[in-house]
Amino acid sequence: AVQVLYDFSAEPGNNELSVREGETVTVTNQNIGGGWIEAQNSRGEVGLVPEDYLEVTPPSVGNVAAAPPPDLSFFDAFAPASTPQTSNGGGDPWSAWNTDATGGASNNWASKPEGTQTGRSAAPDPWGAQSHPQAYQGPGAEEDEWDDEWDDVKSSGYAESESGEGGAFQRGGAQGTAMKISLNKFPGFSKSGPELYLLAKQLVKGSQKLSIYMGEVGPVWSYPDNQLDCVVADPKKGSKMYGLKSYIEYQVTPNTTNRPVNHRYKHFDWLYERLLDKLGSAIPIPSLPDKQVTGRFEEEFIKMRMERLQGWMTRMCRHPVVSSSEVFQLFLTYKDEKDWKTGKRKAEKDETVGVMIFATIEPEAPDLDPIEVEQKCDQFSRFTKAMDDGVKEILTVGQEHWKRCTGPLPKEYQRIGKAFQNLSSVFNSSGYQGEATLTDAMTAAGKTYEEIALMVAEQPRKDLHFLMETNNEYKGLLGCFPDTLAVHKAGIEKVKEGDKLVATSKITPQEKVTMAKRVSTMSYTLQAEMNHFHSNRIYDYNRVMQLYLEEQAKFYETIAEKLRQAHAQFTTM
Amino acid sequence: AVQVLYDFSAEPGNNELSVREGETVTVTNQNIGGGWIEAQNSRGEVGLVPEDYLEVTPPSVGNVAAAPPPDLSFFDAFAPASTPQTSNGGGDPWSAWNTDATGGASNNWASKPEGTQTGRSAAPDPWGAQSHPQAYQGPGAEEDEWDDEWDDVKSSGYAESESGEGGAFQRGGAQGTAMKISLNKFPGFSKSGPELYLLAKQLVKGSQKLSIYMGEVGPVWSYPDNQLDCVVADPKKGSKMYGLKSYIEYQVTPNTTNRPVNHRYKHFDWLYERLLDKLGSAIPIPSLPDKQVTGRFEEEFIKMRMERLQGWMTRMCRHPVVSSSEVFQLFLTYKDEKDWKTGKRKAEKDETVGVMIFATIEPEAPDLDPIEVEQKCDQFSRFTKAMDDGVKEILTVGQEHWKRCTGPLPKEYQRIGKAFQNLSSVFNSSGYQGEATLTDAMTAAGKTYEEIALMVAEQPRKDLHFLMETNNEYKGLLGCFPDTLAVHKAGIEKVKEGDKLVATSKITPQEKVTMAKRVSTMSYTLQAEMNHFHSNRIYDYNRVMQLYLEEQAKFYETIAEKLRQAHAQFTTM
Repeated sequence: AVQVLYDFSAEPGNNELSVREGETVTVTNQNIGGGWIEAQNSRGEVGLVPEDYLEVTPPSVGNVAAAPPPDLSFFDAFAPASTPQTSNGGGDPWSAWNTDATGGASNNWASKPEGTQTGRSAAPDPWGAQSHPQAYQGPGAEEDEWDDEWDDVKSSGYAESESGEGGAFQRGGAQGTAMKISLNKFPGFSKSGPELYLLAKQLVKGSQKLSIYMGEVGPVWSYPDNQLDCVVADPKKGSKMYGLKSYIEYQVTPNTTNRPVNHRYKHFDWLYERLLDKLGSAIPIPSLPDKQVTGRFEEEFIKMRMERLQGWMTRMCRHPVVSSSEVFQLFLTYKDEKDWKTGKRKAEKDETVGVMIFATIEPEAPDLDPIEVEQKCDQFSRFTKAMDDGVKEILTVGQEHWKRCTGPLPKEYQRIGKAFQNLSSVFNSSGYQGEATLTDAMTAAGKTYEEIALMVAEQPRKDLHFLMETNNEYKGLLGCFPDTLAVHKAGIEKVKEGDKLVATSKITPQEKVTMAKRVSTMSYTLQAEMNHFHSNRIYDYNRVMQLYLEEQAKFYETIAEKLRQAHAQFTTM
Repeated sequence: AVQVLYDFSAEPGNNELSVREGETVTVTNQNIGGGWIEAQNSRGEVGLVPEDYLEVTPPSVGNVAAAPPPDLSFFDAFAPASTPQTSNGGGDPWSAWNTDATGGASNNWASKPEGTQTGRSAAPDPWGAQSHPQAYQGPGAEEDEWDDEWDDVKSSGYAESESGEGGAFQRGGAQGTAMKISLNKFPGFSKSGPELYLLAKQLVKGSQKLSIYMGEVGPVWSYPDNQLDCVVADPKKGSKMYGLKSYIEYQVTPNTTNRPVNHRYKHFDWLYERLLDKLGSAIPIPSLPDKQVTGRFEEEFIKMRMERLQGWMTRMCRHPVVSSSEVFQLFLTYKDEKDWKTGKRKAEKDETVGVMIFATIEPEAPDLDPIEVEQKCDQFSRFTKAMDDGVKEILTVGQEHWKRCTGPLPKEYQRIGKAFQNLSSVFNSSGYQGEATLTDAMTAAGKTYEEIALMVAEQPRKDLHFLMETNNEYKGLLGCFPDTLAVHKAGIEKVKEGDKLVATSKITPQEKVTMAKRVSTMSYTLQAEMNHFHSNRIYDYNRVMQLYLEEQAKFYETIAEKLRQAHAQFTTM
């Protein structure tokens, strides 16, 4: 029996258990992983509770931040809000967030960011709430075909998950495969607020420092001269367990070594977890492409996933901090199986995770003015919220357009084409002399409209697809910002309380100075991230808009050309 | 009290009364006009019955064919079929017709041709059963605004009809304006079968003969060297009854005199009635554009009607027999009001109407083989049926396409445009330097899609409109053929009975010879009509297809150009 430290409201349908501060519960499974524990309350109800809400010693998951904070009363401000948490807060990451500073940091604790969450329990629709257009998900698609915990192709119908293999977390656990666990409800910094960093007696030594410079646009990361890039290609089927289980391996080739390495989806997933743990407090790490994307055909699904993994990897490569990180380099350049396993173990034991990442950052400029920083953050917060709305609008409109372009519209062109051809074939039966001059041309016109129908149906894959993918990526990325911003805001708030904390002897005056300095580092980091985001955003949207308009123009030009040809078949009378 | 000569099944919703052969009814109103009489049966039910189904003396409507035939038993073959006539026979003129020769001519009597009927009681939709796309009929359109019996603009809200003014028929009658009368259920030849002509003792003397030659394609009308044409233009509002009633007058200018004459819709209607009476047995006279077409705006309605009157006049001008007829010439070239009134009275008294028109036709070739003729007729009958299906298919598809192009599709392009502009304006709020290079271009792209939306919505008026109008014209024209073919078929059948009729002394051997000769004239006429139809059809479809494809190509070219311009606004990165 253990004691509950804070109130926790279960989210419906997530196998969670609501608990109240001071309540006593029995731990029924401590090996759930991902920061969760299965517990039973006095009424016999069993469910998941965040492990840091309970006074238990967590299982070793290689996360230094999991250690209980020294002074719990100090962290009251970061405890979950005691106001009832409604389930709709989880649906929209923006609903609780950005409604101004009244709720403060705790408000953000209460919200469950969609972006990070979808990496674990995503809806089957890769682009929104509605079901995906035909292109990727036909009516006959089996929802579960690719829903294996570890994405293996079930070549023999076996549905077992490879529990525990290699990963730091054990998944599935007590309730088996039917249980969906939101592993990353509070990703990266889940075990603590920024205080762990702000008040750490001693920062990490010896590790490589990450530099931030003052650029034209403000604080910027130090970018490498040669940008890392990689190609994800050549998906191959592999198998194990005497062929009972098969999986897809992708070839990943970095431009640095030009030597391909093989990775399965679960390796990407592992990488994502590591990056999230290590950098997530400072850098928004977008989710991997959804696991549960379904496709009518295996090839289509694999192609789609590969494309999205490529997009994710490209984005990671472009980030100077991510691309230079040891774990990312390991992923791209491991020499052999042994090298990979050793590297994995080392990465999983890395203690510089969560907010401690800020300890490795060194801005080469004077401390920033907290007021100015706060204004910038608020502006960025409003910006990301507004952009999220804009991106979602494009996704909604694009999805409808996709449906129309692949559904009713080509059907209509086809019917027009058929109608011309039918009338033409009636004309052919007239027995009237010289009929062929008209009917040959009319039949050709009809066929032209059938060709146009095909073109219309195919076109979205050539242009709208990329517009959608880019906006979908940004939707995920934007979903990470509330957390990143909240960590920063919590730091700012703590510094504001500095005098009070000194006055009540919670901290020493020296600690207050240190805290201010460290918050400035956090602010530099956040601003470098903002600028990184903006610069990438301008690049990405410029590129995708050009591609879209270019393909659209080509499309209409081709149609016009076909119609000109059809027109030329008619004889002038 | 009068006796019912044949069974008649009322069509629901048409104020008709079902009667049985031998039943006695009371005539309650003999002044309905259009071949109808209002009668009351023994059960007290009142409704309309075709006047030739009753043993009454019809009112003088200037139609010689209305005189009772000399030997009723002789015409049994042309009496309405005694098989129950279902109401759905009226909906599709092709449903009863062309189901092979078993029903024979009587089958056609039973069917109510849509084409001729719509001239009187058309649905508000000018193109089909469904309501018309936005272009001509907005949601706020008042159904009745233009539904005046005589198409006058109700400038003062008065809704009286100008009963009886000038016309040969009295309309409205006992049951007032609410009653819709199908005046031309059996147009032209309604008062008799072809026997009147086949067995006439003496044919019309002195009148100008219409020649039929053997052309390359078979029998053809003698076409004039200079084709008559006219322009319908310049609609002007006139008024009468001290301004209480106003009307629209159109200017009609023939290419022969180049002198405009003015005509109201009701004059066109009068002309149509005359042509139908005089030529309808031999030549399909398409209905006038519907009276009840409604438009949101007066201007729109007038423009639409004018365009359709132009189409109708052009078609009439193109027909050598119609264009050379006295009544048509009167319509186009009357000198003054007095001239017009005199001509009208003369035309209304013309006795060479109905099947007697065949008496004025002189084929300059030997008699045709009836068997061969019958085959040709059957082929043409199948052809017109098939073409009717084809035309209706295009109308259906075109109407759906129209709806999509003026409704959801431009809305979607508009939303895409708005979404781009919204995102662009979010980007503008980033505060990030150099943002304008992207946002200016994105805003322009968004505006481009709004322009495309407008183009898409406007396009159907520029191309689909003419495709629809042509097919709609042909739908009407094709609807006339069942009657034309039936008259001919009845003639053929009568000749086939020749020997039997001679044997039973119904006719003399000389009359049999005369009959065969005259049926041959009918056959020449029909074939000249077929060839006229085919040659016009090829011309019309060639022209409209070229126009459609040309406009479509231009449309897509313009879109592509706009997209190219939008694309060029983005900076290459």
